[in-house]
Amino acid sequence: MRKKESIASWFRELQSKIIEALEVFEPKIRFESHPWKRPGGGGGDSRILAEGEVFEKAGVNVSEVEGELPPSLMAKLETTSSNFYATGLSLVIHPRSPQVPTVHANWRYFEQSDRRWFGGGADLTPFVFRPEDFRHFHESLRRPCDRLGPKVYDEFKQKCDEYFYLPHRKEHRGIGGIFFDYLSENLDQVFEFIKESGMSLIDAYIPIVQKRHSLSFSEREKDFQWLRRGRYVEFNLIYDRGTKFGLETQGNTESILMSLPPKLSFEFQPELEKTESEKELMKAFRNPKNWLAS
Amino acid sequence: MRKKESIASWFRELQSKIIEALEVFEPKIRFESHPWKRPGGGGGDSRILAEGEVFEKAGVNVSEVEGELPPSLMAKLETTSSNFYATGLSLVIHPRSPQVPTVHANWRYFEQSDRRWFGGGADLTPFVFRPEDFRHFHESLRRPCDRLGPKVYDEFKQKCDEYFYLPHRKEHRGIGGIFFDYLSENLDQVFEFIKESGMSLIDAYIPIVQKRHSLSFSEREKDFQWLRRGRYVEFNLIYDRGTKFGLETQGNTESILMSLPPKLSFEFQPELEKTESEKELMKAFRNPKNWLAS
Repeated sequence: MRKKESIASWFRELQSKIIEALEVFEPKIRFESHPWKRPGGGGGDSRILAEGEVFEKAGVNVSEVEGELPPSLMAKLETTSSNFYATGLSLVIHPRSPQVPTVHANWRYFEQSDRRWFGGGADLTPFVFRPEDFRHFHESLRRPCDRLGPKVYDEFKQKCDEYFYLPHRKEHRGIGGIFFDYLSENLDQVFEFIKESGMSLIDAYIPIVQKRHSLSFSEREKDFQWLRRGRYVEFNLIYDRGTKFGLETQGNTESILMSLPPKLSFEFQPELEKTESEKELMKAFRNPKNWLAS
Repeated sequence: MRKKESIASWFRELQSKIIEALEVFEPKIRFESHPWKRPGGGGGDSRILAEGEVFEKAGVNVSEVEGELPPSLMAKLETTSSNFYATGLSLVIHPRSPQVPTVHANWRYFEQSDRRWFGGGADLTPFVFRPEDFRHFHESLRRPCDRLGPKVYDEFKQKCDEYFYLPHRKEHRGIGGIFFDYLSENLDQVFEFIKESGMSLIDAYIPIVQKRHSLSFSEREKDFQWLRRGRYVEFNLIYDRGTKFGLETQGNTESILMSLPPKLSFEFQPELEKTESEKELMKAFRNPKNWLAS
């Protein structure tokens, strides 16, 4: 198994590649680097783009932190040793236009006591119903999974549907993707998968941005996007383990919460099925589909 | 001690009185009643006003629920009996203009096993620094506390500052008010206090609305309001016990989350001290003041 330094360094490389692919759509502004230190040890580099033409708010962050786990997290991990090391890349892209879906992805590596494992995933939150795009997104994420094993995509896809779920709404956050955690066997092979999975995000997302970013949209499509962004906030602040872990381990608040959408709204009993597209989307949010079924 | 039915009925009376006081500012629309039933027992009546001239989103809800506590809450309450009864009034008013502060209040009564107790509080979240208004708000809330006991206001004020705190921001949600829980002694006297405290909210808040609602405001004041509303969401979804209790006991999702502001924004590293008013407000959010100190 490679050393943790080479894993961390690969995450920094991926960060540059993803940012390069996103900046193609932004003639006027660049991602800005915001390095930070963690008081308990380590730090990170949050690269943020705000108020772009295509991307209203985007963050592609790497971090490499180590130190002491708080007792609550030691209990959760069933460990008596409080040392940990974690490195990873985490991104959330909130495009301006509701025609372009929001995307989130994260790949991470942990060392805790004598255990080592990878986790991660990627998922799409669209505001317009476009099965063609959803198929493309899942197909791209599937390829690296298939190289890891025959049933891997199905398993990771299901885990993603389970994870990005809001029980109080009986809804999923978006149309899914892949999610995995505690991959601790064959770490060399898993690291190869992580690398391919990281690169596959670019193939999965950029062509959708390319195809949709210059389409016009209605006032209602924007309203729907703002309301669905509200659900995104509910998920991230109430349920997301990454957010909880970050806040509980005194991570960098601004980097953790960069995932929250730029502008949004909450209504009492909002109507979310005004159009055919909204109806189809909501159906898919309530009952996850297999987008690759023939 | 009065029976629980008469406590519940008093909360419904208070609901009508508060709504009457708020509707004075809304010539065109009224609060709408949204009754709901809780699957496990009981229900409530959420009265909601949306898109008013003065109030952008307002909810004044009563509920009376009973049934079984989930095991996680039984552990928290250190009880082996799972039966509970709860009734209360909960309100959140989000005015349209940043000149008018957001207000939240809640009074509630619990029966669990052989224990009975009251809890509640009220707090103000302003977007413009106006010590005169903050003094008025605290003074009005203080009067019923003083009748309960000499040190009661100080104690409840401090509990409020402790409760409405965002550790990840090292900030309080607003400029405080009062907060109390588990008041289980002299329940007759406490119920009198609850009634006076409920009525005092009208004296505390309505004159501020009256004075400020027709003042003009700048684009920047609106931006600041939207950003601070983001912190309101962070508090309610990450820390608020009422929200957690509601969602964990399968309460009515729409009524629980009516507390969330109508429109808001999240920025990466927002500047929150652009004006003198903002600087003074942020100072007060970081270090709670005694607004009644002479």
